[in-house]
Amino acid sequence: MKQIIAAIITIGDELLIGQTIDTNSAWMGRELNRAGIWVRRKAAVADKREDILEALQNESSAADVIFITGGLGSTGDDITKSVLCEYFGASLTENAEVLVNIKTMFTSRGLPLVERNLQQALVPDTCIVLPNDRGTAPGMWFEKAGKIYVSMPGVPHEMQAMMTHSVLPRLNSYFTLPVILHRTLITTGMGESQIAERLTAFEKSLPADIKLAYLPGDGLLKLRLTARGDEQQRTADELEQLFGVLRETLADITIADEDILLEAWVGRLLKKNNLTLSTAESCTGGLIAHKITTIPGSSDYYKGTVVSYSNEIKESLLRVPAEVLYQYGAVSEETVKAMVKGVIKLMKTDLAIAVSGIMGPAGGTPEKPVGTVWIAAGTENNIKTRKYRLRYDRSRNIEITANYALNLLREVI
Amino acid sequence: MKQIIAAIITIGDELLIGQTIDTNSAWMGRELNRAGIWVRRKAAVADKREDILEALQNESSAADVIFITGGLGSTGDDITKSVLCEYFGASLTENAEVLVNIKTMFTSRGLPLVERNLQQALVPDTCIVLPNDRGTAPGMWFEKAGKIYVSMPGVPHEMQAMMTHSVLPRLNSYFTLPVILHRTLITTGMGESQIAERLTAFEKSLPADIKLAYLPGDGLLKLRLTARGDEQQRTADELEQLFGVLRETLADITIADEDILLEAWVGRLLKKNNLTLSTAESCTGGLIAHKITTIPGSSDYYKGTVVSYSNEIKESLLRVPAEVLYQYGAVSEETVKAMVKGVIKLMKTDLAIAVSGIMGPAGGTPEKPVGTVWIAAGTENNIKTRKYRLRYDRSRNIEITANYALNLLREVI
Repeated sequence: MKQIIAAIITIGDELLIGQTIDTNSAWMGRELNRAGIWVRRKAAVADKREDILEALQNESSAADVIFITGGLGSTGDDITKSVLCEYFGASLTENAEVLVNIKTMFTSRGLPLVERNLQQALVPDTCIVLPNDRGTAPGMWFEKAGKIYVSMPGVPHEMQAMMTHSVLPRLNSYFTLPVILHRTLITTGMGESQIAERLTAFEKSLPADIKLAYLPGDGLLKLRLTARGDEQQRTADELEQLFGVLRETLADITIADEDILLEAWVGRLLKKNNLTLSTAESCTGGLIAHKITTIPGSSDYYKGTVVSYSNEIKESLLRVPAEVLYQYGAVSEETVKAMVKGVIKLMKTDLAIAVSGIMGPAGGTPEKPVGTVWIAAGTENNIKTRKYRLRYDRSRNIEITANYALNLLREVI
Repeated sequence: MKQIIAAIITIGDELLIGQTIDTNSAWMGRELNRAGIWVRRKAAVADKREDILEALQNESSAADVIFITGGLGSTGDDITKSVLCEYFGASLTENAEVLVNIKTMFTSRGLPLVERNLQQALVPDTCIVLPNDRGTAPGMWFEKAGKIYVSMPGVPHEMQAMMTHSVLPRLNSYFTLPVILHRTLITTGMGESQIAERLTAFEKSLPADIKLAYLPGDGLLKLRLTARGDEQQRTADELEQLFGVLRETLADITIADEDILLEAWVGRLLKKNNLTLSTAESCTGGLIAHKITTIPGSSDYYKGTVVSYSNEIKESLLRVPAEVLYQYGAVSEETVKAMVKGVIKLMKTDLAIAVSGIMGPAGGTPEKPVGTVWIAAGTENNIKTRKYRLRYDRSRNIEITANYALNLLREVI
């Protein structure tokens, strides 16, 4: 079976000067990979005629499908459509369906319609139009010299809906796609090189169609095993067998045996055991609550958080005794333990997480330097605590602390 | 003055299959731009010899400086160093300083040192070594055929420290760099095309060396004016004059006249007016608190949040009257008003924000469909409220709600 190869071109000055982080191509990479299409390269170029033409030329030389996002808005800097016309020798014609969609969209939202909105109904006459049910810029599917080109808007949720509803089904009926499968193990507490040392024999034993990758994150390390094959069942079996070996080899440091967010994994554990959770956050400022509540259905087990930036609230609301705060300070084992107990009472939950620390850049002392953080998790009578000394900047310290706290809770459950 | 052109190559399968979102190249783009270097293209390629070689060849054809990140770890899939040796005709030799750094790093963290850690001290003999004070993989600076190549580790905080302390100063003394200046206006409440309509004359009046870009975000729209010139003062003056016109034209929808996070802008307003803030969140689950507390120094004005996922806590802690919850429901104007009053009392602050809504995917009713959200902000006696009907997925709905809430607070202050 021939491997279908893709390239992604993202268009927009904002990507090059870093005002926008490109999340589109990551999302597309994930979906295409799942569909059995290998993304070989990604290129980002400016809203500039020659650069876009060069990218179309370059990327199509080694790919079967070329995805293009961005530059389809209604403003002056959006030139993708006219460049595509030039590249494909097409001319713009009004598309009746797109026009209806634009009018409906503006009417239903009660927005005034201006001339340049109507111009979005102009599409190259050589393309198949892909409907946009989230916005006004249509997608476009071109075929030229045996290659497929798909142009989509850069607004993430518009592009995602279009990929899901139009592009992927169309690709699936166009090509015979191979099987690409992944299994991911999430570990914590051991460095990349130490793990690699332990996996030397395992890595050597891998057949050519199975690849191992190390993906370090904020306080976690993911190990991803990827298998490529022609036949679903055989590929899955081979992957499963090797993933079993990997899981066994790293059992002592494994958090989860699938590629899942820690907060989703913890949520699943809570639900399975019919337990409820609350949190009391100081230095993480609501990030733990935010992570937990991003998971749909979290209201079943999560009751809420108290973020207390002042000792007064720690005392009045979380009932941390004044003498504990006075004697040990807000960043101490005793305080986070008292916070767990306090928030469990307040929110009437089975379990709680509490964190208190100094995230920087200011606020450190010689005994408690920036990066010092205490974490506690448990039930009223069984609380585990852990101290860390983080070495990064404020937002990274916050991110890592939230992950460590969720992981401590996982250990407790 | 010759424009210095850069290209960025990011290496790693995880970028292509979308397991990692590339934030590195955005950060680099921002910094290079500020330094007067134009990033013309970015390319992401796999951990594959031929693909890396091809990218080096391609990108160096139209750039003066080629930045390379990733693939420098200590594990088997990291092949960048050996490919660079091949490309530059170099061979690996041990670097004494790097070796000392690796040993110090492991000793100070109390981690065991294994053979493959020591191998990171091997560097191509034709490069200048750039120290890594955050990790073990050194950076490398090569010069070949009049082009500069800089290879850096893919771990964001390691790369950032290296760029700041070594790479940018070195580039600055190597080239005479032009002036590139930006001014950004943040607006809300009006669509891209309507604004563009209003700016038709303004856009036509722009000289060739000044560019306007539209950058839509979650509920906000940024307008960025970029000027390029030889001389600092003249370029700044020209930009300033045109930015003044832009600001005036859009005064009624402007939130801020600089590229700043809404939470930082609100924080600055609070500080200036010597006001304190607390929040009561339901559907945003702590995101508003998280955003506010990511800003260093936020503990000066921010006291904390109560995230209440249950009516019980809304009653007991936030003192939302049971009859309000019963009569109007948790997602109502009356409830968010009561939440503002409740949390102001609880946290003893001047101002508060409260939100309550249904973020999806489940939980909607015919009268209150998914996406319905009520926001309130104000003082105890002066509360502004606003209702929205959002149409996106859960995480985007949460993100937009947090921005709208911060903006409502800004209007109140």
